[in-house]
Amino acid sequence: MQKLIPMTSGMNYHDYLQLDKILNAQFPESEKQKLPAHDEMLFIIIHQTYELWFKQLHHETDSIATFMKKPALNDNSPELQTVVHRLNRIVTIFRVLVHQIDVMETMTPMDFLDFRDMLRPASGFQSWQFKELEAKLGLKFHHRHGQEHYTSQLRAEHVGIIKKAETDKSLLDLVNDWLERMPLAPSWSSKNEGADSFWTDYRNLYINSLADAEKDNSQAFDEIFFDSGNSQDPADIKQRSLSAEACRAALFIMLYRGYPILQLPFQLLNGLLEIDEQLSNWRYRHMNMVHRMIGTRIGTGGSSGKNYLKAAADKHYIFREVAQLNSFLIERRKLPSLSTGMEKLLGFVHS
Amino acid sequence: MQKLIPMTSGMNYHDYLQLDKILNAQFPESEKQKLPAHDEMLFIIIHQTYELWFKQLHHETDSIATFMKKPALNDNSPELQTVVHRLNRIVTIFRVLVHQIDVMETMTPMDFLDFRDMLRPASGFQSWQFKELEAKLGLKFHHRHGQEHYTSQLRAEHVGIIKKAETDKSLLDLVNDWLERMPLAPSWSSKNEGADSFWTDYRNLYINSLADAEKDNSQAFDEIFFDSGNSQDPADIKQRSLSAEACRAALFIMLYRGYPILQLPFQLLNGLLEIDEQLSNWRYRHMNMVHRMIGTRIGTGGSSGKNYLKAAADKHYIFREVAQLNSFLIERRKLPSLSTGMEKLLGFVHS
Amino acid sequence: MQKLIPMTSGMNYHDYLQLDKILNAQFPESEKQKLPAHDEMLFIIIHQTYELWFKQLHHETDSIATFMKKPALNDNSPELQTVVHRLNRIVTIFRVLVHQIDVMETMTPMDFLDFRDMLRPASGFQSWQFKELEAKLGLKFHHRHGQEHYTSQLRAEHVGIIKKAETDKSLLDLVNDWLERMPLAPSWSSKNEGADSFWTDYRNLYINSLADAEKDNSQAFDEIFFDSGNSQDPADIKQRSLSAEACRAALFIMLYRGYPILQLPFQLLNGLLEIDEQLSNWRYRHMNMVHRMIGTRIGTGGSSGKNYLKAAADKHYIFREVAQLNSFLIERRKLPSLSTGMEKLLGFVHS
Amino acid sequence: MQKLIPMTSGMNYHDYLQLDKILNAQFPESEKQKLPAHDEMLFIIIHQTYELWFKQLHHETDSIATFMKKPALNDNSPELQTVVHRLNRIVTIFRVLVHQIDVMETMTPMDFLDFRDMLRPASGFQSWQFKELEAKLGLKFHHRHGQEHYTSQLRAEHVGIIKKAETDKSLLDLVNDWLERMPLAPSWSSKNEGADSFWTDYRNLYINSLADAEKDNSQAFDEIFFDSGNSQDPADIKQRSLSAEACRAALFIMLYRGYPILQLPFQLLNGLLEIDEQLSNWRYRHMNMVHRMIGTRIGTGGSSGKNYLKAAADKHYIFREVAQLNSFLIERRKLPSLSTGMEKLLGFVHS
Repeated sequence: MQKLIPMTSGMNYHDYLQLDKILNAQFPESEKQKLPAHDEMLFIIIHQTYELWFKQLHHETDSIATFMKKPALNDNSPELQTVVHRLNRIVTIFRVLVHQIDVMETMTPMDFLDFRDMLRPASGFQSWQFKELEAKLGLKFHHRHGQEHYTSQLRAEHVGIIKKAETDKSLLDLVNDWLERMPLAPSWSSKNEGADSFWTDYRNLYINSLADAEKDNSQAFDEIFFDSGNSQDPADIKQRSLSAEACRAALFIMLYRGYPILQLPFQLLNGLLEIDEQLSNWRYRHMNMVHRMIGTRIGTGGSSGKNYLKAAADKHYIFREVAQLNSFLIERRKLPSLSTGMEKLLGFVHS
Repeated sequence: MQKLIPMTSGMNYHDYLQLDKILNAQFPESEKQKLPAHDEMLFIIIHQTYELWFKQLHHETDSIATFMKKPALNDNSPELQTVVHRLNRIVTIFRVLVHQIDVMETMTPMDFLDFRDMLRPASGFQSWQFKELEAKLGLKFHHRHGQEHYTSQLRAEHVGIIKKAETDKSLLDLVNDWLERMPLAPSWSSKNEGADSFWTDYRNLYINSLADAEKDNSQAFDEIFFDSGNSQDPADIKQRSLSAEACRAALFIMLYRGYPILQLPFQLLNGLLEIDEQLSNWRYRHMNMVHRMIGTRIGTGGSSGKNYLKAAADKHYIFREVAQLNSFLIERRKLPSLSTGMEKLLGFVHS
Repeated sequence: MQKLIPMTSGMNYHDYLQLDKILNAQFPESEKQKLPAHDEMLFIIIHQTYELWFKQLHHETDSIATFMKKPALNDNSPELQTVVHRLNRIVTIFRVLVHQIDVMETMTPMDFLDFRDMLRPASGFQSWQFKELEAKLGLKFHHRHGQEHYTSQLRAEHVGIIKKAETDKSLLDLVNDWLERMPLAPSWSSKNEGADSFWTDYRNLYINSLADAEKDNSQAFDEIFFDSGNSQDPADIKQRSLSAEACRAALFIMLYRGYPILQLPFQLLNGLLEIDEQLSNWRYRHMNMVHRMIGTRIGTGGSSGKNYLKAAADKHYIFREVAQLNSFLIERRKLPSLSTGMEKLLGFVHS
Repeated sequence: MQKLIPMTSGMNYHDYLQLDKILNAQFPESEKQKLPAHDEMLFIIIHQTYELWFKQLHHETDSIATFMKKPALNDNSPELQTVVHRLNRIVTIFRVLVHQIDVMETMTPMDFLDFRDMLRPASGFQSWQFKELEAKLGLKFHHRHGQEHYTSQLRAEHVGIIKKAETDKSLLDLVNDWLERMPLAPSWSSKNEGADSFWTDYRNLYINSLADAEKDNSQAFDEIFFDSGNSQDPADIKQRSLSAEACRAALFIMLYRGYPILQLPFQLLNGLLEIDEQLSNWRYRHMNMVHRMIGTRIGTGGSSGKNYLKAAADKHYIFREVAQLNSFLIERRKLPSLSTGMEKLLGFVHS
């Protein structure tokens, strides 16, 4: 017979979810000021749900980072599958976050005006959890829009949390390391003779595939995959997060994604692009919503809301270096075929 | 120069949203029991977001009820517009709640099993806020599926809250009253001579429009709009929430929805149907998710999850009597035309 | 008994929908060239569904324009309700069009490469129906991005169709006319003495509400609502689609939207903004998809896909002058109250 | 320099998509009958888009079946990945089909009445493409609701197409065969000694995990995984589509999905459940929409629309035997651990 694992005594749904806390955490300013504005409750609750979801996104991101930090991600364990599964969950959660903007948009500009001035200087751009998340994923401080302001309205402890995330290895850094150390990397890296000829061949095929107007891509190819033309000036180099070696590994995965050992790595790279896309959708719809809500007025928090979001939408593409690789593919039917030995290495024992 | 209304001193985004509470309210059982299950955090957080949204749905429903309880809803004020606007917001929120099931579905059955037994007897069917919401909208206790259990796992105070909602006038009751007392009602009610002939005419047109296989609708017409055949037994009568008079008013609104004074009433009735549809989608997708998650196993909380939800999905249509009226329409081009006097009453002063 | 209107003889579902045509209209180039690419079918079919929906959007837009062209839109008829209903349908359709991009995104860059080169120079930017729709809604030729190319790949007859739409009154023009001739306009226009003082009052209230950093809005107010500072140079004036008088009417509707006669006009203006938002979402997601698909390569059709879409997304806001009005609202509790006579004019006969 | 593959001469976007056909295939009955009903165009176009998507769903399903029919699906090739990818695309398309119902719902019952009688007996339940798709996926004729009618309104050639699909191997049949012949099957099948003990162990663990109220699952376990109690009467047996051996393979995949060789098989099984879920959502929302549209009236085509759809929603679960397996899982931490030899077989050569 089943032994029920004894549960914390007296636990029920309400207590388990700590609803006494959760449901007693809404204190509209407009009520305190005796000028009740019906829609302020919506404003509070939607932001609270966003923050709960941000906590969940941290939970997933942290668990992914834990796996990715291991010296060797074990291909023969569920680890990589778990990483991909949780990346996909992050994407699914972001889709809900984007959708939630529909609810915010049921608040008309006039409804917002009823309590907007009471909120200054509190502003939705002050979510330290979100800034920390951006940093954990890979947004560098020097890419951040509005850097001079971004901590001015936060508690010191929260600034510290963000700064720590910025100095830790980000998911993007960890992806770079993982790509660099892929167990099969030597087989296709430029250090390996056969691989050398693989990349020479591929480079020729690629350059031949370019239309006249695309010829610049030839130089970009060499810079990205072979560091040519990159100055040794560290100030320059730091602008790139993925090394040439990591880029070659990633491109190889994209090209030969059908081989068993590359299937989940391909899904992983794809998951990163999906995250960027949802982040980008979220910022874009958020920007449009703010524009509809306050037009050219100043946002709560003192920023010109729309301009901030527009700049952020343009600058905060975290995985742009992964997305960029899609410019360097060639047609499947023209791909160099792999040696039997190589094919074997990419497959299962049993087959 | 703008006078900023002074805000609670020291207020920032984090404090305003009470994030110290909100973000410190997740205590997975699996951690307490030293058998950490990664996905329990998702389970907690998604339910907390549901509960936050339920609170918001109460906020909207209560404000709607406040307007609807007034002896006369002022057509010449923003009241009715506000009611319709907030009904639509409820629908928009429900769409997000339905969408959130996508996130729950990223938890596979095996992932759920990792902590499922630790949660018994806490169960998602124990949300008192949701039961209270159903009651406020109009779900009667005698229509509720699983009545014998529904309070057994709740705190006494929460049972009391639900019971109070069940005895108060529900939104459906308030809609009935509003339909009965519509300012124009006498002009089309059976108490009025011209109106009498309107309904006699309409009844004939409707019956003529029925195909042979639909002839039963003729009897239903008389029962619904003229109480014919309804026993005087109060036990029977209480099964219906809308009076014959209210049904006639609602049908009139549906038929002549284009006239100015009927436009928002039509949107109001439509909003009720949208709420039922979203509630129904939510239950249905929830049922399918539970089925995928636990199959024929017993749900946390001791119920057979899927069967409960299936029965509830069939029985908990709150505004079915409104939906039902759509069976009694006739083609627009065959509608009785209204007198000039009547048309004038349905319009604006200025035109 | 019901007389069934006799239907075209022999009609069934398949014939009614002309499925012999619809389902035999897919001829992949990759099959003709004996290099079958599985995903080309998806490419064809998704574009065909887009074109079908574009036809439906024209159907709705044309019907709206027919109503709006009437010398007086009858407030006491279903006309305005119908306009609003169909605007909302356009929005609902656009949401599906945005969602469909999810399907397109299941095509990976490598899958697309399998047939991409066979399609040149045919390109998705050559939808004459879409360009015609933009023109009908109100996109002026001089705002159009890439004007020099936009007709070069179209049949002459389709170029003619677009040019005609550009010279006809657009929906935006019709909205301007409707706002200018609103039956109540004299009561609040500057031609009316009381109204004069209304706008003087409102202007003061608005300017007092501005924070220091927003002071520029004061000048914009005068330009937009009173033509001050606008040169008489027709070349300049043509840049604006809404006259000062129309802008005042629209702002009045936004401010006093709760009065019965203003409720549907408010929904109409709101519908325009929703259309722009969905159009904008569609362009933005489309842009991101193209970027993921071809990176910095050249699009089918010879354009640099992403740059075209980015420029279009920035420049093709059709109803920006309506959106802009949201910058000129003041708090509801500070609104000038209307005279009893005015209130009466905004309401129903029966109340 | 790039050699452009020569394209069919003169091809442009309009011709490539056969828009002359597609955009000239809408002939509303209400126009023929000189009683124009604005919304009939929507009715036609939305059904045409459904049919186009159905064609695409056939394209994907057929390609999947082609792979699955191979005597051995090559694990070391992209085949399985392609199958999973296309299953996921089917799911993505179904999500759009579900979403499209939002557009249909913008047609109110009164709007539909304007042309509804002209369409009889053409009905949306007559889509032969959809019936064929159900059959291809695995719906058996004896599970089909309303079998006596289902072909009466179709052309003979289309009836033939459906009947052929019903006699061919369905996707469900192919999945059964694939599960039965999995390369590793002998290692865990009851024919193998060690495997024997694996299943004996697992059975004990499972039965011990059952709560008292779930004890019936023990008998179900033996019937499903070991054919116990199943009569040899072929009439009975044909009720099940998955053999005991296939069920064991599928359960093994669900339990040990983290091992490399089981990752895509797990995604494949999951894809089937997603398809059923979307099909089910589509039927359910369709049913609610029909209910709102015509209430208890008779549908075009003569069926009682809602009842048909309700019965179909209950009976047409195609992959229910896969879903059912989720009732037979045990907690991950209690799973029998696999031998090193077995683990090696489930992994990559290179690791």
